[in-house]
Amino acid sequence: MEQPLAISLFSGTDDRLNAAAVLAAGAAAIGRPVHVFLQYWALDAFRSDRITNDHGLAPEAGVEGANAVRRLARLGQSSWAETLRQAKDIGQVEIQASSLSMDLLGLEQTDLDPLVDGVEGVTAFWLAASDGQVVFI
Amino acid sequence: MEQPLAISLFSGTDDRLNAAAVLAAGAAAIGRPVHVFLQYWALDAFRSDRITNDHGLAPEAGVEGANAVRRLARLGQSSWAETLRQAKDIGQVEIQASSLSMDLLGLEQTDLDPLVDGVEGVTAFWLAASDGQVVFI
Amino acid sequence: MEQPLAISLFSGTDDRLNAAAVLAAGAAAIGRPVHVFLQYWALDAFRSDRITNDHGLAPEAGVEGANAVRRLARLGQSSWAETLRQAKDIGQVEIQASSLSMDLLGLEQTDLDPLVDGVEGVTAFWLAASDGQVVFI
Repeated sequence: MEQPLAISLFSGTDDRLNAAAVLAAGAAAIGRPVHVFLQYWALDAFRSDRITNDHGLAPEAGVEGANAVRRLARLGQSSWAETLRQAKDIGQVEIQASSLSMDLLGLEQTDLDPLVDGVEGVTAFWLAASDGQVVFI
Repeated sequence: MEQPLAISLFSGTDDRLNAAAVLAAGAAAIGRPVHVFLQYWALDAFRSDRITNDHGLAPEAGVEGANAVRRLARLGQSSWAETLRQAKDIGQVEIQASSLSMDLLGLEQTDLDPLVDGVEGVTAFWLAASDGQVVFI
Repeated sequence: MEQPLAISLFSGTDDRLNAAAVLAAGAAAIGRPVHVFLQYWALDAFRSDRITNDHGLAPEAGVEGANAVRRLARLGQSSWAETLRQAKDIGQVEIQASSLSMDLLGLEQTDLDPLVDGVEGVTAFWLAASDGQVVFI
């Protein structure tokens, strides 16, 4: 089996979510199992009533960076949610919401986009993550 | 022995510090040795005269996110410093300040909270981190 | 051979770029091969017409943090670009630009500083990164 990849996904801006989705999809495409753990503002971005919203960019993007991102979106570039959906179709990608962050934001699983497979605690995350690489985004 | 976890901790906002503390405590709870390396704004947050201050949130939190964090704090949720203190009690958690960041901020070890075990350079960090997983937060 | 280190470098502020450069140089100094993958705002910071510019700091730096960084720069501290140049001299450090981010920012390789060795896709990054540790900065 290829080495698993675990992503502790904290950030909720479109640029970081897109970077995470591209890394997850690339790993899934070469056969690696990918486990994504949604915390804080990343979890908020997966709410079904907001997932297609504009989630902003890191402040460092500046006006020029924001224009570049908007131009690619107009040209039909996939959103991070679409990239993750495609990654789930071609590979083994599991997306779990952090139970602590669910409490923080007052969410139930029915509030989340169907991309999210379930809710887990940090211990379950570490058990899933312990065999491979892990990144925090 | 369980796989070691090294955390290169750079960020000094309460949301990221809390995410780091929860990941560290979860890893320690399942028997993993955890090594935390404090740099830049994370190190600043461990100054003994500031560790209980409000350290703000990532800009992406927004008003709604900030209210959610404040509501949990009022309900008695542990601070990240308390979470790390508990993690040290139940497991093997070592917290080291980056010598370069100590110079940057003009700090001596006596300026830091007793949670911090010592000061080390980046080579010592890599020697401690080389056997397991590493995350940058 | 020492364990390889892969850095998925996303952030373009001088504090995070410097943290990344110090981690990369420290790993290279103990004989570890280092592979850096430039995305988004980090890639923008490697443009040859901007690499020596002030790239700002994370918002959490605050006025006091910004003054500390400026003071060290006046005292002659190496910039992150110089640190990476020195790391390339003493060790095995490869820096690749993300092809997706090149498209996003409308760049050609001739627009980039000679520190950047080439352009690669995410699959090539994962193939280079799969054997060791990986961090996202």
